[in-house]
Amino acid sequence: MPKIVDHAQRRLDLADAALALVASEGVSAVTTRAVAKKSGWTIGVINHYFKSRHDLLLATLRRASEIQGKVYKDLDEQNPDAMEKLHRLVESFLPLDERRLALTRIFLFFYAEGAAEETARIEIAGFLARWRNVVSSALTAAQEQGLIDPALGIETATLSLVGALDGLSFEAVLDPVVMEAIARPGFVDTCIDVAIGRTPASH
Amino acid sequence: MPKIVDHAQRRLDLADAALALVASEGVSAVTTRAVAKKSGWTIGVINHYFKSRHDLLLATLRRASEIQGKVYKDLDEQNPDAMEKLHRLVESFLPLDERRLALTRIFLFFYAEGAAEETARIEIAGFLARWRNVVSSALTAAQEQGLIDPALGIETATLSLVGALDGLSFEAVLDPVVMEAIARPGFVDTCIDVAIGRTPASH
Repeated sequence: MPKIVDHAQRRLDLADAALALVASEGVSAVTTRAVAKKSGWTIGVINHYFKSRHDLLLATLRRASEIQGKVYKDLDEQNPDAMEKLHRLVESFLPLDERRLALTRIFLFFYAEGAAEETARIEIAGFLARWRNVVSSALTAAQEQGLIDPALGIETATLSLVGALDGLSFEAVLDPVVMEAIARPGFVDTCIDVAIGRTPASH
Repeated sequence: MPKIVDHAQRRLDLADAALALVASEGVSAVTTRAVAKKSGWTIGVINHYFKSRHDLLLATLRRASEIQGKVYKDLDEQNPDAMEKLHRLVESFLPLDERRLALTRIFLFFYAEGAAEETARIEIAGFLARWRNVVSSALTAAQEQGLIDPALGIETATLSLVGALDGLSFEAVLDPVVMEAIARPGFVDTCIDVAIGRTPASH
């Protein structure tokens, strides 16, 4: 009997191997050779699934985005209270462990690509639309439960929070001052306080 | 008599030509050939001043940073009131005209480079430290003049504002939804309101 190959699963495994390299060493470490070594598959197999390094990196971006989507879905199922949900959403985005560092690094790479190349731009704009939707729903729920100011403009607060998380995450991978700041206890709540219009006092 | 060549000036002229290309077409348009055409100098002259495309782009980044520094310096000299100064600082950063679009594009390119390469990372971290310093001084002045809440933590507000401006600027070059939002009248003041802990109502 011919061996049954689960192609979708193999693509995922290879993207996971690439994502692990992004986490440990950065995007520049993702080469066909390194992914072959990491995944245990041959370079020939990798070239069969991805026609270029860019194609492999795009699969890595999509995998990171899918894993982040699963974080949101799990949160929905656990259904914590609205402020706890906001806290955990913000926390899931900041590059404070290997998974989130990989997410930030692969997104930073594709933000720069997206400024030059339409496929990457569309991918990023799509991710941003979904992420704003998640944040906006969480803010709306908190507002409906009377946990945040009823005068808060949800659209503005969403833009502001999503923008700040993007900027701070990218800055943190480049600047130890920012990395140290976002890692401080209380920083996640500070981000939320700022976005929802509470005075961000010193922590 | 031998012709006196102002090498520093020629490097600046070439960086300006590259920056104009970044503004009109993006970083990927910066090639030795295109800069030669734009500046009127030969490819040979450009290769004399910049040993690689990366070297030329680094000079372009420094030029953009220097022009942004001049915006701050001019603001200091004009010495507007503290809230007006904050407004103009925030406005000077958002990619709403060609100069600022070029600034955002060249920085986005080097943020991604900086995740992989130490020279770029140090350049970006240095820029961020200076920019935080400018924002933090403006916030402190506004607080000393009683224009913003005395309980505001300046360090946190600075991180938050600088982070949000970075994130929103990068997002705006990729996502028309964000570009449209930051271009709305009142958006600059909303950014400031959020950072200083005023409820960001809808605009």
